[in-house]
Amino acid sequence: MSKRNLPIKPNFLDNVEKINSEFLTLTYGSLMVRLIKDYEKPEEINDQLEKMGYNIGIRLIDDYLAKSCIDAPKTFEEAIAIISNQAIKYYLGLDNNDVKYELIKSDNSITDNNQQYEYKIEIKENPFNDYVELPDKFKGLWYSNMICGVIRGALEAINIKVECKYNKDTLKGHDTNEIRVKLIEIIEEKLQEEEQ
Amino acid sequence: MSKRNLPIKPNFLDNVEKINSEFLTLTYGSLMVRLIKDYEKPEEINDQLEKMGYNIGIRLIDDYLAKSCIDAPKTFEEAIAIISNQAIKYYLGLDNNDVKYELIKSDNSITDNNQQYEYKIEIKENPFNDYVELPDKFKGLWYSNMICGVIRGALEAINIKVECKYNKDTLKGHDTNEIRVKLIEIIEEKLQEEEQ
Repeated sequence: MSKRNLPIKPNFLDNVEKINSEFLTLTYGSLMVRLIKDYEKPEEINDQLEKMGYNIGIRLIDDYLAKSCIDAPKTFEEAIAIISNQAIKYYLGLDNNDVKYELIKSDNSITDNNQQYEYKIEIKENPFNDYVELPDKFKGLWYSNMICGVIRGALEAINIKVECKYNKDTLKGHDTNEIRVKLIEIIEEKLQEEEQ
Repeated sequence: MSKRNLPIKPNFLDNVEKINSEFLTLTYGSLMVRLIKDYEKPEEINDQLEKMGYNIGIRLIDDYLAKSCIDAPKTFEEAIAIISNQAIKYYLGLDNNDVKYELIKSDNSITDNNQQYEYKIEIKENPFNDYVELPDKFKGLWYSNMICGVIRGALEAINIKVECKYNKDTLKGHDTNEIRVKLIEIIEEKLQEEEQ
């Protein structure tokens, strides 16, 4: 990841109209229909979505940093704030109050380097869920699991290794959509970057 | 299709920033990877993409008419103008000069009701093509064929039956991306709608 020494413009989103995510939502739906044809178990679909999202995330982060003209966040906290306050809204066409994040107590057992941070990100209305109803046999499906993969991929590309999982989904009758992001490790930047 | 008697706001796009289609582009790419795994022949993928697009188009038209606050176009010419000047730009995040359309001479043999209209729509830079290279064995693939399906579905939902095909694609070495839209028939509105 190359360094970007551009001026910080944290409010670039103020100039962006609520975008139209309808085409994205419907394209995502087409992808889902295809996956449902290919895989029997919802858990397999969850995995596929996560992997696809990961591959998208490692590319989307470059697009995001370039468009927003900000440096890549260096800390987990900063990254979560940017994802919640800006990136999710930007790519899903959401309003300011649609996404919230909060630090929650973390489980010590996952990490071996004493970084015990875990956040929850709440997406009040997830456009991917529009028009969707989960049939009983797909109750195990996290319909928008691609988003978890995107977050994991994007953060890994900037050296922040996380575990990202869906925890609540309105499609499953929950009151909101909630994603949990747990820090695994901050990968030290390689020396060769400093030399460039 | 219900009638919309909302005021015409032809310039609603003037207030919309160039949207970010990056996430859409990458999601479309994931869908393509999946289709390539499932189908051997490029022609089969073309068909699948067209069908998916059709299903998207019949829903996207409602979204478009509602957001733009315009009545459904009644003529083929008007519909092509809206698709080219507004809708494609809106959903793909393109600039004003990126899409052009032109009436071209039509082949009489297709139609049996003397409507011989055919347009070409040129999309100078198709964001779906970003980062894509077609391997030799996929030379028969029209990578963005979903767009043809969307146009066909959207128009059929407003009673304009068309044939829509890709004619040029920069991925195949052509100088531009060109879609041909040929009018098959204008379906007369059913009486029950008038009675409502």
